[in-house]
Amino acid sequence: MTRILESYALDRWFGATGGFADIPSAIDAHPVARASTQGLDFAAMVRHARTVGGPALRALTFHQRADMLKALAAYLSTRKEALYALSVDTGATKRDNFFDIDGGIGTLYAYASRGRRELPGERFVVEGAPESLSKGGTFVGGHVLTPLHGVAVHVNAFNFPCWGMLEKLAPAILAGVPVITKPATVTSYVAEAVVRLIVEAKILPPGALQFVCGGTGDLIDHLTGQDVLSFTGSAETARVLRDHPAVARNSVKFIAEQDSLNAAVLGPDAGEGTPEFDLFVKEVVREMTVKAGQKCTAIRRILVPRAQESAVIAALKAQLSGIAVGDPRRDDVRMGPLVGLGQRAAVRAAIAAIAAEAEIVHGDPEMVAPVGGDAAAGAFMAPVLLRCPAPLEAVAPHAVEAFGPVATVMAYDSLDDAVTLVAKGEGSLVASVFTYDAEVAEALVFGIAAFHGRVLVVDRDCAKESTGHGSPLPGLVHGGPGRAGGGEEMGGLRGVFHYLQRTALQGSPARLSALTRTWLPGAPAPVPQEHPFRRDYDRLAIGDTVETPARTITIEDIEHFAHFTGDTFYAHMDEAAAKANPFFPGRVAHGYLILSFAAGLFVDPAPGPLLANYGLDNLRFLKPVSPGDAIRVRLTVKQKQPARKAEYGEVRWDVEVFNQDGDTVARYELLTMSARLTEPALAAAS
Amino acid sequence: MTRILESYALDRWFGATGGFADIPSAIDAHPVARASTQGLDFAAMVRHARTVGGPALRALTFHQRADMLKALAAYLSTRKEALYALSVDTGATKRDNFFDIDGGIGTLYAYASRGRRELPGERFVVEGAPESLSKGGTFVGGHVLTPLHGVAVHVNAFNFPCWGMLEKLAPAILAGVPVITKPATVTSYVAEAVVRLIVEAKILPPGALQFVCGGTGDLIDHLTGQDVLSFTGSAETARVLRDHPAVARNSVKFIAEQDSLNAAVLGPDAGEGTPEFDLFVKEVVREMTVKAGQKCTAIRRILVPRAQESAVIAALKAQLSGIAVGDPRRDDVRMGPLVGLGQRAAVRAAIAAIAAEAEIVHGDPEMVAPVGGDAAAGAFMAPVLLRCPAPLEAVAPHAVEAFGPVATVMAYDSLDDAVTLVAKGEGSLVASVFTYDAEVAEALVFGIAAFHGRVLVVDRDCAKESTGHGSPLPGLVHGGPGRAGGGEEMGGLRGVFHYLQRTALQGSPARLSALTRTWLPGAPAPVPQEHPFRRDYDRLAIGDTVETPARTITIEDIEHFAHFTGDTFYAHMDEAAAKANPFFPGRVAHGYLILSFAAGLFVDPAPGPLLANYGLDNLRFLKPVSPGDAIRVRLTVKQKQPARKAEYGEVRWDVEVFNQDGDTVARYELLTMSARLTEPALAAAS
Repeated sequence: MTRILESYALDRWFGATGGFADIPSAIDAHPVARASTQGLDFAAMVRHARTVGGPALRALTFHQRADMLKALAAYLSTRKEALYALSVDTGATKRDNFFDIDGGIGTLYAYASRGRRELPGERFVVEGAPESLSKGGTFVGGHVLTPLHGVAVHVNAFNFPCWGMLEKLAPAILAGVPVITKPATVTSYVAEAVVRLIVEAKILPPGALQFVCGGTGDLIDHLTGQDVLSFTGSAETARVLRDHPAVARNSVKFIAEQDSLNAAVLGPDAGEGTPEFDLFVKEVVREMTVKAGQKCTAIRRILVPRAQESAVIAALKAQLSGIAVGDPRRDDVRMGPLVGLGQRAAVRAAIAAIAAEAEIVHGDPEMVAPVGGDAAAGAFMAPVLLRCPAPLEAVAPHAVEAFGPVATVMAYDSLDDAVTLVAKGEGSLVASVFTYDAEVAEALVFGIAAFHGRVLVVDRDCAKESTGHGSPLPGLVHGGPGRAGGGEEMGGLRGVFHYLQRTALQGSPARLSALTRTWLPGAPAPVPQEHPFRRDYDRLAIGDTVETPARTITIEDIEHFAHFTGDTFYAHMDEAAAKANPFFPGRVAHGYLILSFAAGLFVDPAPGPLLANYGLDNLRFLKPVSPGDAIRVRLTVKQKQPARKAEYGEVRWDVEVFNQDGDTVARYELLTMSARLTEPALAAAS
Repeated sequence: MTRILESYALDRWFGATGGFADIPSAIDAHPVARASTQGLDFAAMVRHARTVGGPALRALTFHQRADMLKALAAYLSTRKEALYALSVDTGATKRDNFFDIDGGIGTLYAYASRGRRELPGERFVVEGAPESLSKGGTFVGGHVLTPLHGVAVHVNAFNFPCWGMLEKLAPAILAGVPVITKPATVTSYVAEAVVRLIVEAKILPPGALQFVCGGTGDLIDHLTGQDVLSFTGSAETARVLRDHPAVARNSVKFIAEQDSLNAAVLGPDAGEGTPEFDLFVKEVVREMTVKAGQKCTAIRRILVPRAQESAVIAALKAQLSGIAVGDPRRDDVRMGPLVGLGQRAAVRAAIAAIAAEAEIVHGDPEMVAPVGGDAAAGAFMAPVLLRCPAPLEAVAPHAVEAFGPVATVMAYDSLDDAVTLVAKGEGSLVASVFTYDAEVAEALVFGIAAFHGRVLVVDRDCAKESTGHGSPLPGLVHGGPGRAGGGEEMGGLRGVFHYLQRTALQGSPARLSALTRTWLPGAPAPVPQEHPFRRDYDRLAIGDTVETPARTITIEDIEHFAHFTGDTFYAHMDEAAAKANPFFPGRVAHGYLILSFAAGLFVDPAPGPLLANYGLDNLRFLKPVSPGDAIRVRLTVKQKQPARKAEYGEVRWDVEVFNQDGDTVARYELLTMSARLTEPALAAAS
């Protein structure tokens, strides 16, 4: 029975009205499923995302959306065995599934965690510091990020039907932008199964996720400047999307990740017998064979010092000979088939193009004896290693991506040549450098950085824990310039920010404080009758202020503090030496004495809602405090981090310490935990 | 005598071989200059930028490049009178010149200052925090930004020949990317004069700046993924550039700023007689008339509560009637001509298109009586105000940009309608909101933010110092989504980062510390024989460490500190109350006591290279310290900010305070000034 796949549109599963195409198994070409989008109303899908999904997501805070991602990850991770089973027909081995299924779920978890830790519990992000725009301080600026009002259209490649979908979904949903996701049809039965689980989990709000199983029809026609089109796949398809009239006309945000001729470079120091040599050979073999080399991050160009070329080729041949190709279900099989016969034909054609300027030194593109597989029906292929004798002059080995278990060895004569060769890829997702030499690392990394989204330095110190050349990680940028598409994904919150519009705000400090829920200098700072430390978290208002009386710092205070703490630095103890210091007029108070006295001035000692000072940010001592100076403090509620717990929340206070002339001597932000009980926490607890 | 303009290519002035076109004066159509790029070798220009300008700029640090910008600004600002004089023929009044000439020079100064203050004295930027990538900590990640290896091609609009060029030039040069700049031909004589001054100043290195005076020929054909194409002008030209085969094929970074139907919204609270009503009318008139309305940021759509519509129109008519149009050299003239007769014809056509759905309520597009100008020969035009009776249904008033002194009044019935109307612009550079009501501001600002690069709230508190609706500022983002082009410029360092490639780095802590010149946990932390505080700035190495002995904190210490400082918070003083606090096991030491004792442990009291502790960042108290606990400190050089002064430099130390069990109780970064003398500073000074 061939499964009929469906799309998910307007919160309903949609069966196409006809036009189905069979999707063959990678292993034996039997039809696994059938897909079509005939009859699907793409305009209605875009409208649904904009009018239902967007408003529902934007009504939530970043923390609430993060919680949904976490729940989704938990839901999927107890159901992944079924996905493993389905993936077999894509040619995926157990190891491959780990990257696709577990990697996808892990990315959801990672964004859930970042959303809670690194984003505010608000519907907007305040980005960067406020900008002073006027002498008198009555006109100021800043930046906020808010969700786009459109839809994120995600068009994915065939190789990672789960991870590819989820690594794009997580940042968009966290940002508050609904998603229409479209997998490559050839492996869409895995993606469809993931979407069925997501729908069944009922965690996302209506309209937040729609799914296109089959062709995209006129979907792109409906996009505007509030939409994001994010694509992973071939350069050819990327060009079609980029040149789509609607994309150019409406300045649709376009993110592409396409061909990439990633390089691994063996340093001149890493000769045979060094750990880095062995790590290099192992990594190249791994990259050639994981997912049968069908990875946009796989190593395609193997750069080695000329002196090491024969040794590297010999070592690679030895290891590649041991790679069992065959039925991905078998434990003794290391590499499954390519995704299909069409893909194999494309890889063979690419090898032929490269072979015009290189020789095949291992493997036969036309010959393979699969373990437990049918060589005729399945898309099996042996790993193929080429050697390019004149890489500085060659074109195809730097330009033709054979998207399979294929890579080309190139020898270089100098580090400059190595950099030139890497750059001939005209922009890649990732390069790795294998060296234990600081100067080699410096020359290679900074020589090639501008051409890459990621550069990995592998050596004996990190190899054991290294996640490898080919693994994009949620916390690091994934993407590359030029041939790699010029896009960027993930990279922690950077990947979320693609879905947010950055807007500069200008106005009075009072207005901007109110809008951004962040007190700014110049905004009202009312001093309530009760000490703000006596106000529980929920009653504290942005701007609530304490103004303390002054305390004079005497020379005895300074000496006492010095001897008590052991900090007898000469600037506090020796008038002549202090005077000779370029920053001090003579003996001065310790910075920590100022901080400690400031706390003594503003503290409210009895138990109350203020629970603890857990930190301090951006402290600057701006003017020395001399014996006889009198300091006083102004303490103002700057921000409240929306509470994650029922018991308490985090409060950030702006603290300014003045001397008797009204000059600021110190400025910092104080971080406290404040109880959320309406009655003081400790009174209730005792 | 008609001036023959030249291009500046390969560090030489280039006279075209023919094909000249006359550039007529805006005032009286006399030929001001002639321009052509016939014979210019664009491929050679791109190659020159890549092979000469790029390497020369990349050899400098951000601080050195910032210094060049400052010198350039100083050079130009003593020579701006000549530029004012030339600008008259573009139609610019004195007020207009202030925006273009002084604004351009001010932007150079602003980027010079930001480069010194906000960028490191290095050739790369470390962006964001390090990423933990492994359990054992032997494999870590981070991000660096390095200059692209290509060229920045800047294509500018006619309206700001100086500012438009310099606001693009400054961020690119600061980033280390050479520039090929191309002004709109119709006002290129002003840009050419600015470039002649820049060349004559001999401040930029060879190849850093080239100048195209006339058509761009095949320039765009030569761009790759290492290049940036930044355009300001019409949507039509933007589309041609965006669709250029080389741009799509090579993923050229493309930044566009094009049509924008910016709105100003009068709040429902701001009725006649309120300060905001008057500010609104004044700002609309200013935006319609500065540069004769030829500003991409000008107000085109005037949104008012229906109840205020007649009053606003009456007030605008009254003020517009007082605007003297004429010869821009005359002091009694408020508005000069449009840039040329072609532009006037285009504006008249746009008015006709808008007038299909609106009525003209003030001004006649065909009639004007210029003060001291020739109405027949000059491109004079009266301000034209339209009123759209059904703005929710209308199309043209939201879509057709009349790039001249033209705007349309639209009445709204509710805040929701106002938001809808603003969004019908489909993305704009800027909107302004005139209100003194917090709820109105909140609803409008967050309602429209996603459609704008900048939103300004004007009220009585900030109006006096407001820089106005139409002024992009170096510190704030300039650009907008959708119809506005989807680009972003300036915004402080954000504008510089467009010219830098972001690259994730992965490797061992030791390797990443060395590459990024930033100590990371897990990297070597050698304890030198001499105390690092005795090492002058230049001899201090990243990773140099102090390990202190331990000091036990007694209950007496805590009580003594409490009474001495006045900080008798119950958590330090009252065992039962402290126990009831969710964070403390009982009485605990003050955070400031820990800091003070830590300083006492690591300080080296005698005069030496360490001059002062000027601040502290990212302090977190991670574990309570109870009486009887013994603390010790590890202090490690984390970063050295390359010294700006001969006498001293800034050093950032990573500080970790441990208890007797090896748990971290506090962590922070300490900021010091350290002398650069090889002999201790004070010994030399005494």
